Amino acid sequence: MPKIIAAKVIVTCPGRNFVTLKIETSDGVHGVGDATLNGRELAVASYLTDHVIPCLIGRDAHQIEDIWQYLYRGAYWRRGPVTMAAIAAVDTALWDIKAKIAGLPLYQLLGGACRTGVMVYGHANGATVEETLENAAIYAAQGYKAIRLQSGVPGLKGVYGVSKDRFFYEPADGDLPTESLWSTEKYLRSAPGLFEAARDALGWDVHLLHDVHHRLTPIEAGRLGKDLEPYRPFWMEDAVPAENQASFRIIRQHTTTPLAVGEVFNSIWDCKQLIEEQLIDYVRATVVHAGGITHLRRIASFADLHHVRTGCHGATDLSPVCMAAALHFDLSVPNFGIQEYMRHTEATDAVFPHAYSFADGMLHPGEAIGLGVDIDEVEAAKHPYKRAYLPIARREDGSMHDW
Amino acid sequence: MPKIIAAKVIVTCPGRNFVTLKIETSDGVHGVGDATLNGRELAVASYLTDHVIPCLIGRDAHQIEDIWQYLYRGAYWRRGPVTMAAIAAVDTALWDIKAKIAGLPLYQLLGGACRTGVMVYGHANGATVEETLENAAIYAAQGYKAIRLQSGVPGLKGVYGVSKDRFFYEPADGDLPTESLWSTEKYLRSAPGLFEAARDALGWDVHLLHDVHHRLTPIEAGRLGKDLEPYRPFWMEDAVPAENQASFRIIRQHTTTPLAVGEVFNSIWDCKQLIEEQLIDYVRATVVHAGGITHLRRIASFADLHHVRTGCHGATDLSPVCMAAALHFDLSVPNFGIQEYMRHTEATDAVFPHAYSFADGMLHPGEAIGLGVDIDEVEAAKHPYKRAYLPIARREDGSMHDW
Amino acid sequence: MPKIIAAKVIVTCPGRNFVTLKIETSDGVHGVGDATLNGRELAVASYLTDHVIPCLIGRDAHQIEDIWQYLYRGAYWRRGPVTMAAIAAVDTALWDIKAKIAGLPLYQLLGGACRTGVMVYGHANGATVEETLENAAIYAAQGYKAIRLQSGVPGLKGVYGVSKDRFFYEPADGDLPTESLWSTEKYLRSAPGLFEAARDALGWDVHLLHDVHHRLTPIEAGRLGKDLEPYRPFWMEDAVPAENQASFRIIRQHTTTPLAVGEVFNSIWDCKQLIEEQLIDYVRATVVHAGGITHLRRIASFADLHHVRTGCHGATDLSPVCMAAALHFDLSVPNFGIQEYMRHTEATDAVFPHAYSFADGMLHPGEAIGLGVDIDEVEAAKHPYKRAYLPIARREDGSMHDW
Amino acid sequence: MPKIIAAKVIVTCPGRNFVTLKIETSDGVHGVGDATLNGRELAVASYLTDHVIPCLIGRDAHQIEDIWQYLYRGAYWRRGPVTMAAIAAVDTALWDIKAKIAGLPLYQLLGGACRTGVMVYGHANGATVEETLENAAIYAAQGYKAIRLQSGVPGLKGVYGVSKDRFFYEPADGDLPTESLWSTEKYLRSAPGLFEAARDALGWDVHLLHDVHHRLTPIEAGRLGKDLEPYRPFWMEDAVPAENQASFRIIRQHTTTPLAVGEVFNSIWDCKQLIEEQLIDYVRATVVHAGGITHLRRIASFADLHHVRTGCHGATDLSPVCMAAALHFDLSVPNFGIQEYMRHTEATDAVFPHAYSFADGMLHPGEAIGLGVDIDEVEAAKHPYKRAYLPIARREDGSMHDW
Repeated sequence: MPKIIAAKVIVTCPGRNFVTLKIETSDGVHGVGDATLNGRELAVASYLTDHVIPCLIGRDAHQIEDIWQYLYRGAYWRRGPVTMAAIAAVDTALWDIKAKIAGLPLYQLLGGACRTGVMVYGHANGATVEETLENAAIYAAQGYKAIRLQSGVPGLKGVYGVSKDRFFYEPADGDLPTESLWSTEKYLRSAPGLFEAARDALGWDVHLLHDVHHRLTPIEAGRLGKDLEPYRPFWMEDAVPAENQASFRIIRQHTTTPLAVGEVFNSIWDCKQLIEEQLIDYVRATVVHAGGITHLRRIASFADLHHVRTGCHGATDLSPVCMAAALHFDLSVPNFGIQEYMRHTEATDAVFPHAYSFADGMLHPGEAIGLGVDIDEVEAAKHPYKRAYLPIARREDGSMHDW
Repeated sequence: MPKIIAAKVIVTCPGRNFVTLKIETSDGVHGVGDATLNGRELAVASYLTDHVIPCLIGRDAHQIEDIWQYLYRGAYWRRGPVTMAAIAAVDTALWDIKAKIAGLPLYQLLGGACRTGVMVYGHANGATVEETLENAAIYAAQGYKAIRLQSGVPGLKGVYGVSKDRFFYEPADGDLPTESLWSTEKYLRSAPGLFEAARDALGWDVHLLHDVHHRLTPIEAGRLGKDLEPYRPFWMEDAVPAENQASFRIIRQHTTTPLAVGEVFNSIWDCKQLIEEQLIDYVRATVVHAGGITHLRRIASFADLHHVRTGCHGATDLSPVCMAAALHFDLSVPNFGIQEYMRHTEATDAVFPHAYSFADGMLHPGEAIGLGVDIDEVEAAKHPYKRAYLPIARREDGSMHDW
Repeated sequence: MPKIIAAKVIVTCPGRNFVTLKIETSDGVHGVGDATLNGRELAVASYLTDHVIPCLIGRDAHQIEDIWQYLYRGAYWRRGPVTMAAIAAVDTALWDIKAKIAGLPLYQLLGGACRTGVMVYGHANGATVEETLENAAIYAAQGYKAIRLQSGVPGLKGVYGVSKDRFFYEPADGDLPTESLWSTEKYLRSAPGLFEAARDALGWDVHLLHDVHHRLTPIEAGRLGKDLEPYRPFWMEDAVPAENQASFRIIRQHTTTPLAVGEVFNSIWDCKQLIEEQLIDYVRATVVHAGGITHLRRIASFADLHHVRTGCHGATDLSPVCMAAALHFDLSVPNFGIQEYMRHTEATDAVFPHAYSFADGMLHPGEAIGLGVDIDEVEAAKHPYKRAYLPIARREDGSMHDW
Repeated sequence: MPKIIAAKVIVTCPGRNFVTLKIETSDGVHGVGDATLNGRELAVASYLTDHVIPCLIGRDAHQIEDIWQYLYRGAYWRRGPVTMAAIAAVDTALWDIKAKIAGLPLYQLLGGACRTGVMVYGHANGATVEETLENAAIYAAQGYKAIRLQSGVPGLKGVYGVSKDRFFYEPADGDLPTESLWSTEKYLRSAPGLFEAARDALGWDVHLLHDVHHRLTPIEAGRLGKDLEPYRPFWMEDAVPAENQASFRIIRQHTTTPLAVGEVFNSIWDCKQLIEEQLIDYVRATVVHAGGITHLRRIASFADLHHVRTGCHGATDLSPVCMAAALHFDLSVPNFGIQEYMRHTEATDAVFPHAYSFADGMLHPGEAIGLGVDIDEVEAAKHPYKRAYLPIARREDGSMHDW
């Protein structure tokens, strides 16, 4: 029995903060799991260090399901981003360990590859439509089969998804949350034009995605979905805040634009109605925020019954550890849809050496045993934690809006 | 404008761990809020200290609603016990401050008292039915109008709700989670007998409550509800784990025993279906775990539309700060049902001097301005944090059960 | 890559017919899967030999999910017992191979053990109540924690579940289907008495189960469920034929007796409504008839969302290969309920040497790598196929009834 | 009593494989039934030969209903393509016998003709839109009132429904399944143009049909349905895989294009929700795959309650025996909609001499007694079985798609 003999949390900031759990066993095998919760990193670190790790020592590292249940039920107060990110980190590290013991890349334990690679989408942003499309063209030239388009909104100063740096956009940019201004009307007027221009410039052989980032009401989202239909977007993401899952019924009844949501979901309960009523087409729950590989597979399996595919969140607020886990997952689930992909900085890649690689618009987890990713603790130690927040948004009258 | 100039988290363990947020304003007023999450205390403390407090400094303490929205939407990953306990602490402290500025006890700001006091229920426990009923008789003699009955189950060693100490039961008893054994069959055979004996011993003029503590499946709960009907329990609590809210339909169709649930709920989304389908009669969400006074009032308001009353959780894992907040809330909402009440230890009372008091089976928040409760930091410092966990439960085959 | 280089079907009849698929890989590893469909064995053998095996040769044995999808979607006409038994056999054999390559017992690949053993129930039968209870007492003495009770019905000659041989009941007894007589009225009058007597004789510390074997209408089943309530059966099985899943609503609204169904189910679609409306408590789908380990895990995962537990069919019409697969599955799924268990004959055990074992009312798959079961082809060859059918039932007017 | 004295299965491959059951009675009458399951032929042959035929010998050939129930309930594991094709073959042959004994064409026993003929649709295919429309024009010139249009998709090599031979398309073309490439986006872009061009070329007096062949998700199908609306298609067929019948709700809410589905259905349970929620307009279940004439009449009867009409599958993978049975059925049911019709090869017609005939876009079963079709065993013997599979489809990333 590979006993858990030690576990620790490593917080590092090679450009942005990452929280990593490392578990060691009596067999000399170790595994890693991502526990990063953007803007709330240390709460998860505390949850793990102060409350979870003491319970892990001495347990059989093979008992992934039992440990998952132990941490989920044992918390008494369940669900939520902090709890589920902590459980996810444990779960991911234990799958890493199990795959290493089996001597196989993780995807083999998950049923084997059922595709040759994982289609990803990149982020093309710009202050103007022209700039966005210039950047999109660069992605297309690099072989990307799918590109997310976000563009500045005339009359609004800063907009979600649009950065100064073309390719290393990091929204968690402030020592305190940046406050941005929002106007639904201005946005709704400008978004369709971006897609019309994009089809002219980029043609129809590339998937175009768009992220509404929780900014609309259902009826507004229905309107935008309809406006975008002629340009055949791959998906319209996070159209409305989704606590009230039934609210997607309104969007659904007005448009055939495919819908994606879920990067903030923490468990299957956050999307059960969305899936079982087939209100969405892609569920964007991730390994780190939705309870790990064990739980994400359950979400995917449930989704598959309802023609819903996966579209895992994959921004740079997830570490390469999460990306590796997602790729093994993506390669193995029958109803994979697409994977978000933003390149990490070189400093991040140095902290997290990994086996996955990009080619022809696809990622592949590689054939290293386990997850195929590790943390270089010496490198990590060079980048101490630096407080950072995601921005918030306010309307023109100063009231809070969803960011 | 009363500007927030400082805020700090105080962790103290006068018998058990409590996490308290204290906010100070430029007006020299301070307020307190409970942030205790039993068994995961330091994660909330970190959430507040490392991520929330920096965002509070400089804000107008009057803008409770704006700050609530700021913390809820600004977290990006919403809901869950850690996040919502942190928001609740801020919200409670700000209401305390606002009431102090107004020079009024808090309930006056919530619309004023609409009852003279708050009916509470106490916990009568025992290893045997006889012992439970002896203790219940003591409560009855003290004027309690409502008593929760939990009794040992023949054939099971330790059972939820039954302690060695008659009146200061604290389940979070271990440096690591205590593992207890569970047998549904043994429990289901013994529970109805307890209530039959209780009605014989205590008569029909006292409300009798029972807590199933998430141990049953829906059909088992339906059976138990039916078995208890002749003894007219006030409620059957936490019959099944409630992530799948629709599962209460099965219980509901089989029994007229009133149903209560919700001490683990963190937001209105955890009970929206339960309430809108009228699957329960009492919602047990609390100030500290369900986003503070601001959010709990919204839950109560929604519940009132559906004939659902409140029944706030009030075990000793909530500090007197939360109890005071709950009492102001209870006094002011039209659809108040009942309030749980376990007496804190003397050490706890010394750390948290408070204005609320018990008489004739009722609690009253008192007429002190604000919440009417404070934290004595000198006393608090005498009791350093001591790691403690709630127990977990396993079935006879070793598999995890809900505790 | 472990390439599939050969596969063959072995039909053997050591007392009863079993169909086994054996797959060999280029790595020298082989795996086995059960493909037995009681009374229709050769149709599955043909499905495999003539249509499936040619498609397997040359494939990567690691790609279990892809091969599952390939066989399921590639069949064009999907579902049904013959198709799904064939797919199950392939899936089981490939999991056996993968676990052998990993050097682990299969349950470790499924997430590890989350219980120490698998509670089983045995079959106690008798022509009379007395005889049934005598046999039940023998099971109880052997440590069984759960016993299924079936008894002769006064006025009916032969009844489902009641045999001449006490412990090796084999209903598929004829060269042509035996025709038995059925009377719902006689049965409904006698069943509750069996359970009343059983509680008197056996006490309340043993689980008692009953199989209605598809003989009732919903309202009749509601009546029987209610009649049995005082005796607290563990479950009432196969109350009505379940093609019309909504028909369980009628049973459900009338009784709190837990309901089990599904030994004839071939895919999740046969029980989707039953599970999502929580009309049952236990789903009895099996590895061999419900598409293998890959698909059965999906059913279990879906069931877990709805408080439905597993209760795999485990009569002797499933070979030890299926039993081993079921035990690995049982050990690893969080919502395991119970496992049916009938002992195979010595001749069967000789054909299928296996690592699983019984002790104290529990089965355990053992720690051999892979499934821990194999087929001895020399022994198998000694027992050539012998046509056999399950019986059919007719009512007193000669019309067909469900058997 | 016309006793069944013999029955045999004849497998023949006059261009493609057909499985035929021939039953003989003591009266010297014989009947035939189609049992062909494309790509899985021998499994049905075995099901009949090894398991069903022994049970038929000695039975009264007149007892069609009893024998149907006997085989359906007696199988214990019910439904599915192999089982239901076998039952269908028996049922069809017995109806043939009964009609011969009555000295009437079968439709007279089914209630008599309620129309003068059976409107059929033919298949017009082509690598390009032009070629497809050329072929459609030939059909129109031959008097066809309804034509199915399938065209090559620019950028995809092979597409379902498009063959080299203009009029004898046979998809089951490989000794192993051919693997074809699928791209939903390319297809969705090209399909509407085909219909726009078709209305220009063929006018509005001919029914135009289209088969999506299970390639879309519900929302994609909703989009296509909407895109096709201006061209008034008769139906859009098999828009999505239909195991989850509720998924048609999404399509239905977005388009008024009539929907057809069901060529892979094996029993009424596969379409009960589709029909009772009026999610489709045409049910395409066939005699051979849906349990024979007895069961198909029940489906039609249920469909009629919900404004759903019949549209039997009638590709060349059904033998002339099935076509004859379908035509008697079509002629007699009040809610007949349309009948698919692909001409068999001359070799096939030689093996199965038949009375039905085509004129003016209509088929008629003819006035021969019985089914009006037989099998010439000498001709049949000239064409031994040759393994063949339907193709499978993969997406560009290599993952399985529905073919």
